[in-house]
Amino acid sequence: MHLILDTDIGNGIAGANTDDGLALALILASKEIKLEMISTVSGNVSNIIAYSVAKHFLKLWNLNIPVYLGANSALKEPMKPWRDRLDNSVKKQNLKSLWDTIKKPKIMKNIIPNAPLKMGELIMQNPKKISICAIGPLTNIAIAMRLFKDFDKNVKEIHIMGGSFDMPSYIKDTNFGFDPEAANIVLNSKAKIVLAPYNATMQTLLTHKDLDELENKNELCNYLIQTLRAWIYYASHTRGTKGTWIHDALSVAYMLDESIAEFDEYFVDVVCDSSLVRGLAYRVEKEPKLSLGLNLKEKRSVKVLKNINNPKLLELIKTRLLKGICYKNYKNITT
Amino acid sequence: MHLILDTDIGNGIAGANTDDGLALALILASKEIKLEMISTVSGNVSNIIAYSVAKHFLKLWNLNIPVYLGANSALKEPMKPWRDRLDNSVKKQNLKSLWDTIKKPKIMKNIIPNAPLKMGELIMQNPKKISICAIGPLTNIAIAMRLFKDFDKNVKEIHIMGGSFDMPSYIKDTNFGFDPEAANIVLNSKAKIVLAPYNATMQTLLTHKDLDELENKNELCNYLIQTLRAWIYYASHTRGTKGTWIHDALSVAYMLDESIAEFDEYFVDVVCDSSLVRGLAYRVEKEPKLSLGLNLKEKRSVKVLKNINNPKLLELIKTRLLKGICYKNYKNITT
Amino acid sequence: MHLILDTDIGNGIAGANTDDGLALALILASKEIKLEMISTVSGNVSNIIAYSVAKHFLKLWNLNIPVYLGANSALKEPMKPWRDRLDNSVKKQNLKSLWDTIKKPKIMKNIIPNAPLKMGELIMQNPKKISICAIGPLTNIAIAMRLFKDFDKNVKEIHIMGGSFDMPSYIKDTNFGFDPEAANIVLNSKAKIVLAPYNATMQTLLTHKDLDELENKNELCNYLIQTLRAWIYYASHTRGTKGTWIHDALSVAYMLDESIAEFDEYFVDVVCDSSLVRGLAYRVEKEPKLSLGLNLKEKRSVKVLKNINNPKLLELIKTRLLKGICYKNYKNITT
Amino acid sequence: MHLILDTDIGNGIAGANTDDGLALALILASKEIKLEMISTVSGNVSNIIAYSVAKHFLKLWNLNIPVYLGANSALKEPMKPWRDRLDNSVKKQNLKSLWDTIKKPKIMKNIIPNAPLKMGELIMQNPKKISICAIGPLTNIAIAMRLFKDFDKNVKEIHIMGGSFDMPSYIKDTNFGFDPEAANIVLNSKAKIVLAPYNATMQTLLTHKDLDELENKNELCNYLIQTLRAWIYYASHTRGTKGTWIHDALSVAYMLDESIAEFDEYFVDVVCDSSLVRGLAYRVEKEPKLSLGLNLKEKRSVKVLKNINNPKLLELIKTRLLKGICYKNYKNITT
Repeated sequence: MHLILDTDIGNGIAGANTDDGLALALILASKEIKLEMISTVSGNVSNIIAYSVAKHFLKLWNLNIPVYLGANSALKEPMKPWRDRLDNSVKKQNLKSLWDTIKKPKIMKNIIPNAPLKMGELIMQNPKKISICAIGPLTNIAIAMRLFKDFDKNVKEIHIMGGSFDMPSYIKDTNFGFDPEAANIVLNSKAKIVLAPYNATMQTLLTHKDLDELENKNELCNYLIQTLRAWIYYASHTRGTKGTWIHDALSVAYMLDESIAEFDEYFVDVVCDSSLVRGLAYRVEKEPKLSLGLNLKEKRSVKVLKNINNPKLLELIKTRLLKGICYKNYKNITT
Repeated sequence: MHLILDTDIGNGIAGANTDDGLALALILASKEIKLEMISTVSGNVSNIIAYSVAKHFLKLWNLNIPVYLGANSALKEPMKPWRDRLDNSVKKQNLKSLWDTIKKPKIMKNIIPNAPLKMGELIMQNPKKISICAIGPLTNIAIAMRLFKDFDKNVKEIHIMGGSFDMPSYIKDTNFGFDPEAANIVLNSKAKIVLAPYNATMQTLLTHKDLDELENKNELCNYLIQTLRAWIYYASHTRGTKGTWIHDALSVAYMLDESIAEFDEYFVDVVCDSSLVRGLAYRVEKEPKLSLGLNLKEKRSVKVLKNINNPKLLELIKTRLLKGICYKNYKNITT
Repeated sequence: MHLILDTDIGNGIAGANTDDGLALALILASKEIKLEMISTVSGNVSNIIAYSVAKHFLKLWNLNIPVYLGANSALKEPMKPWRDRLDNSVKKQNLKSLWDTIKKPKIMKNIIPNAPLKMGELIMQNPKKISICAIGPLTNIAIAMRLFKDFDKNVKEIHIMGGSFDMPSYIKDTNFGFDPEAANIVLNSKAKIVLAPYNATMQTLLTHKDLDELENKNELCNYLIQTLRAWIYYASHTRGTKGTWIHDALSVAYMLDESIAEFDEYFVDVVCDSSLVRGLAYRVEKEPKLSLGLNLKEKRSVKVLKNINNPKLLELIKTRLLKGICYKNYKNITT
Repeated sequence: MHLILDTDIGNGIAGANTDDGLALALILASKEIKLEMISTVSGNVSNIIAYSVAKHFLKLWNLNIPVYLGANSALKEPMKPWRDRLDNSVKKQNLKSLWDTIKKPKIMKNIIPNAPLKMGELIMQNPKKISICAIGPLTNIAIAMRLFKDFDKNVKEIHIMGGSFDMPSYIKDTNFGFDPEAANIVLNSKAKIVLAPYNATMQTLLTHKDLDELENKNELCNYLIQTLRAWIYYASHTRGTKGTWIHDALSVAYMLDESIAEFDEYFVDVVCDSSLVRGLAYRVEKEPKLSLGLNLKEKRSVKVLKNINNPKLLELIKTRLLKGICYKNYKNITT
């Protein structure tokens, strides 16, 4: 399958979640997927950091997959509170030293943010052939949908990691909550969508013991382990978990093997017009018993993943990563 | 315990849910509870019908508990779509004949809607002594809270049936959804609140077989059975259930025996300022992991019931009802 | 004409606007108006202070017009920022001494807030006979409208002082802005409404020189002058005006003589569901050129005053006040 | 001055307003302005029609100014009701024949919507040197602001036609109302903004008599007159005006001669989070008397035009147009 990866990847950056890197590694290690391009977006890290990390990642293996810079900030959401939270937590908690031994990617400058344009061109020139795996805020895809007429009808499928339904600890998540308008645009489009929400991804867990099995097996594993270990130490300290949730890589894994999760069909949306619950995701059955006030006529339902088989997921990830980078995904549409 | 029952009781009215009547019966059959007054509110049925039904109910047993008429309509929510749905479903489904054999209460006229005032006087004159069991929309209580300063600090406890959390079939429920502003007012007050949401009450079930055990045991049981049977037939037809959920009576039962349910503490609120999810209830942990945009500092958390023990609940209800009306709850504060 | 005055009167209270007192005086000095009752509401001052001031005012002339306590706080609007602004500005500006020589009314306690009920009873028992002059936040009237079915169709007319349209200095006013939901309820009712917005009332001005003409003419004038002078000093200091705007008394004056103002018919509403412009009033022509998104079908238009004739208004006020209190308004409906 | 024109130009399209064409003509006839590029956006007409019209216009005079296609639809606003209104009014009113004699531009296909990217590159490569004249919905500029960091600080000035303040006939206008989120993004940026709202532009009027003075004077005048006459007939029929308002060309004219209008400084914003007044523009003084609920600290104020000198405006437009296209605006930054 042909794929665009839209990501706020931050592997190697102190305090940044590393599941984007795991997702990218899983893609590169899976011959079924032909990665056409990577677009980067502000989210866990800023767009330019994500761009630099992705470039750094690909350069390690001399991969010439195009990387494009995407949106610098969310459509309407004020960025200051988010950046303050996402960028500074590691300092506030005095845990920056966890990343001391990791080589930092060089942060680039003066890159043109043409990701939505490149994404749109690719989708429009190859109707219904290319899917998107969106594991950051949905800003780039929302912009592409507003620039290109019928982008939503021409994308094959969008696999999204985002949203949390009735999780009293997370009134919003860092993807939909970071850019509620973008999520609203994408979720109300005609695109075919598979959604991996927090409710599903938090049923996963990757531990140090899992990483032990990958240690010194190949360069891809070693690079990943380095950034993942720091994050697991950090996550276990700040979230009290024994490992790390596999948010983003679940979306990739489900593309590779649909048997690792079940799903329900729901109408899904994100609240934009509320002062208190802006960014809250909600889901509605296709034929709700009480739907007063909702207008569901023209909405398309979304596959929402549930009941993750974590052992199977870990097995899939390990098996692939142990084989290392798969070179066959070079001969893609664009070349 | 001294109690005010605030209700949209509609037992005997075609198409109206009968759990308010079951709740009232359970109160009258429980000597621990001293019912000080009944206030009626528009919800499942209009305020004046609820008033007439409550009066009719009490008259059957010559009980002189005061009944007061409350709010005619929700604070801000347009009533037309709700009344159309709540009052006309039974006709649309051609199931009105289910109520044919039940004697209809006489609908009264020209009653003064002094319920919020009477409720307020009683609460303020007996600080921290009287609880409220609110099993309809919260309009009356919200109005009392706006009229009487510190009403919320003087009520002992409010047991509320309302709200549904992430129930994709019910984007809103008929209590909070019917008057979102009222729910918002009460849930943001300083009152001590125990909440029985749909999530909890839908773990209950009362079937024809349960009613069989009460048949011909006493007049209270017979009156109740008559209205409940019609409703169960109706509910099984329209909702596909084998019986009826015990929404409102659960709030009463929990007052009598806290072991029938567990609870969690949450901040709970209802969305008012959104065109699409107006009326949606949401809950937040006391120390959420991601709370950007929420202002929880001055909010009081709420006990939210869960994990209902349905057999124990049914046992409690049956045991009480089989004993019939308990006369000791006459010597109340007001007389 | 039979009238209910709904007011947040604060004459004599340091920092409180005095136009409510002027409005009440104008009513009491006008034999055309039969004042049936006064209801008090929280706004410029708290409901209980307004109640105490009104009682004090009537007692000065031994008038037995009933005064009722109304709502303690707005329906949904948080009170803290408003009370902080309305009650403490005079202290912050160190201008409390302006009120030093004025005898303060005794603040009462333990009064039952039955104003909406009494207002409702009076209106419902005398259909289309009694008007309301609402010169504070609309909380009481909104509550009465929710308690009493068809209250809006039975009130003769509601004269409201409130709202400001496109006044860049006042994104909201202290009546509609103080309780947006209440204003929304009243403005969307079927009641016949005449509205005096800030845009109109700020075309008025009452100066010390005007008060000079009333000095030592009768007791009513002297009482009023005492409180008005303090306010004019305060207003000229804080608002830079040479006198005080006649907000509330304009509504009364227009009832007495419609030639002091012109009007346009508009649909008027107050924004409730917006984080930034909550409380903002807006007006729409009866047949707007661009009305996308508005639902005006069932709305009733409102007379909105404009082009105030200030000299004529001052003349009317002075002429009436110079004659002193008019005793004929005692024989009212209620006695 | 160096300029980007962002426009929903529709001259020659039946039922489309022609003031964008007048604005473009005024630019091309003014040697002070160096037009660097034209970006097109959906608004009065769709983006691709605007693109085709602009290309057609430039081709008439063999001008090689780059034209780029911009956003196909507004960020979040549903397009259906707008398109229905904007595209079909002329048919509904049976006035399509007014455009019968005008040669229609050929509608192009498969154009890449790179306007926000090209706009961003130009602005970022020439910091504080290039202004934008935005006379359609602000979608393109909003997208550029989200793609390019500090776009707002690098644009010299943005001259915007949009918004209407307290115009009871126009609860929203067709620029801000068409894309409220885009207007919100631009108005809350750090860019220096001059705004020509409906309140100002409706003080202008261009009549058939004015066009008579331009008749047969040069090709530019003749082309314009052809499309403008049809529109004036249409506008006089549908709006009851004797001519047409000069909305967009006012923004251009003010760049050329600031003495044709006065201005006030306001904070300006557009309501996004309200079901009823979504799209409503409002303005607040820099130091409002009552600002409860507003957060103005980081907002930049906007110059809002008022008191248009219509004779001077007409004089300026006529003088320029009579001279015809000015060729000096070719030597621009980009070549």
